[in-house]
Amino acid sequence: MSPYNAVGMSKWDLDTPALCVDLDVVARNIKRIADTCKEAGVRWRPHTKGMKIPAVAHMLIDAGAVGITCAKLGEAEVMAAGGIKNILIANEIVGPVKIERLVNLLRYADVMVAVDSEENVAMLDAMARAKGQTLKVVVEVNIGIDRAGVEPGQPVVEMARKVLKYPNIQLKGVMGWEGPTRAKYDTDEERRLHITEGVELITGSAELARREGVPIEMVICGGTATYRYTCFIPGVTDVKAGGGVWGDHYYNDRFHVPHEMAMTCMSSVASRPTPTRVVTDAGRKTMDFLIQEPKPLGCGEVTHVHPSAEHGQFDLVEPNVKPGLGDKVEWSVGYTDPTVCMHDEIYGIRDGRVEVVWPIVGRGKSR
Amino acid sequence: MSPYNAVGMSKWDLDTPALCVDLDVVARNIKRIADTCKEAGVRWRPHTKGMKIPAVAHMLIDAGAVGITCAKLGEAEVMAAGGIKNILIANEIVGPVKIERLVNLLRYADVMVAVDSEENVAMLDAMARAKGQTLKVVVEVNIGIDRAGVEPGQPVVEMARKVLKYPNIQLKGVMGWEGPTRAKYDTDEERRLHITEGVELITGSAELARREGVPIEMVICGGTATYRYTCFIPGVTDVKAGGGVWGDHYYNDRFHVPHEMAMTCMSSVASRPTPTRVVTDAGRKTMDFLIQEPKPLGCGEVTHVHPSAEHGQFDLVEPNVKPGLGDKVEWSVGYTDPTVCMHDEIYGIRDGRVEVVWPIVGRGKSR
Repeated sequence: MSPYNAVGMSKWDLDTPALCVDLDVVARNIKRIADTCKEAGVRWRPHTKGMKIPAVAHMLIDAGAVGITCAKLGEAEVMAAGGIKNILIANEIVGPVKIERLVNLLRYADVMVAVDSEENVAMLDAMARAKGQTLKVVVEVNIGIDRAGVEPGQPVVEMARKVLKYPNIQLKGVMGWEGPTRAKYDTDEERRLHITEGVELITGSAELARREGVPIEMVICGGTATYRYTCFIPGVTDVKAGGGVWGDHYYNDRFHVPHEMAMTCMSSVASRPTPTRVVTDAGRKTMDFLIQEPKPLGCGEVTHVHPSAEHGQFDLVEPNVKPGLGDKVEWSVGYTDPTVCMHDEIYGIRDGRVEVVWPIVGRGKSR
Repeated sequence: MSPYNAVGMSKWDLDTPALCVDLDVVARNIKRIADTCKEAGVRWRPHTKGMKIPAVAHMLIDAGAVGITCAKLGEAEVMAAGGIKNILIANEIVGPVKIERLVNLLRYADVMVAVDSEENVAMLDAMARAKGQTLKVVVEVNIGIDRAGVEPGQPVVEMARKVLKYPNIQLKGVMGWEGPTRAKYDTDEERRLHITEGVELITGSAELARREGVPIEMVICGGTATYRYTCFIPGVTDVKAGGGVWGDHYYNDRFHVPHEMAMTCMSSVASRPTPTRVVTDAGRKTMDFLIQEPKPLGCGEVTHVHPSAEHGQFDLVEPNVKPGLGDKVEWSVGYTDPTVCMHDEIYGIRDGRVEVVWPIVGRGKSR
């Protein structure tokens, strides 16, 4: 059956596994981030690596986002083809094949990319010049995630100054991710302090550059786990929080993000070998179980939730004949980002019925 | 670029990330399992849940497999559409939608399915009767994985006897998976003993049924981690080992499986922030890192291998300018099963060049 035939069906009648989002809940989560950004006076560039659906990107822009953020060039190509004009690729793009694709994309969208080495900037500049384009870049700042990026402070100023030498490259600002500051703390105030300390390494690098005459227009940071603090830190101009649009146990339980959980996965009970053991057809090729465990809903108290490749199973604390063989079990998703990219489509649900089926067209666009 | 334009290219020139298999190594791994099954006199029904490519299924049958095994009905549909005739679905298929699809598939392929409850058998029988078909089933035996299946011994006999009552269902035998017996042991002899103990719960259940007049033709078990022992255990008739066709660190390092590693992932160095830190563009949406870590090849001694969603990074023990920005880094895959299903195609490589590009048509067919 084409998944599109499902429009109008109850979510409980969907063949399983089926990844669903409650559209009213998504709308409230979108409004929550958009309102916070408006209140703080920062631009919202939501990251779409955990959505991968141009239709959702358009919803974000309709709600006030200035554009979107992508992780991969292939995702940006999909979004541009879907009509999204303003795209930040929050990673370095390297190698002749990808650099040519990136510069070609400028004919269809206003794309900005991260840089952290002069070698890369020189290659981007040469390709942009050859094609009569100007490419906007932001310098990535490493504030403790120890992945890509230059160290904060003077190294950022030096890197930004190097960028200014290249005629077909336009320096727009700096970008960082305060991920390492988002860990669990006992109080809201501790989280605010720690996140502020991290973000100030980025805003401080921007200030230092400005004092040395290097123009820094944008200071881009902030994810779902941090935006409610990061938005209000002076000097931050753009916030990338996007994953919170779905809401999940990863953000809620680990980082106290007060979003509603919009995403669930419908499964079927494939085996009921004992009065306490329930085996469903949604395993770790359907949902992430390893980073954050999903939770079966409506089955009472459960224990020993665990997956194999093709099955997700759990034990009921109280022996029961329900859920019976073939019954549907709905799971709230543990971590949406690594779950969405395992599916071909998402069912958009309103009032329990399928309103829209979105192909996850960015899925697998890892190049 | 269409991935098919890559035919003839060096694997080092592929845009990244790119999942590759060395075709000569695959052929040797296929021959290794096929030869063992021939030597032992058992039928080979390789599991294709970690391959998902009909072209590879045809290679297995050309090498002597009697058919294949699938995890999901959707995978079986893809394989049948690709011309594979003999398919075991090694799971229970429940619910009216899937049961109708399953019975419809009998017009195109010789499909056999696992059962572990009379309720399911009754539904399968009703649908088969309605469509004038007979469906072959095997009773799944739980020998310690504690997922689906009936308990070994008398419960298997009782379940098999119930199956015999249904006119449009044909009992073919029993099926189990001795997974819990495959854990690490110090010596080959300890592994052999422990695996034999587990498998004898399946063969013993079959013997018990036969003694009670229940015809059991097939005793199906065995995976890549166990087949070199399981094949030779008296009473076993069919072995499912399939993942070993690729070979990976999961099978080799954890279960001492002496296969060659055919599968690698090509990545590019996206950032080189320090003389020891290497950041590539292949993260945990490209390769499984959580069940079994992949290993970067040709970079000397490395440490601190770890992923984020879109990046795979590691530290060089000796500071070096190599691999430089944009250089290709080839990874040997940690666990092939959860890696293949993240990709749209596999590049088949011979002598370092792309010979064939296979669409992973079973990817995402989780229903």
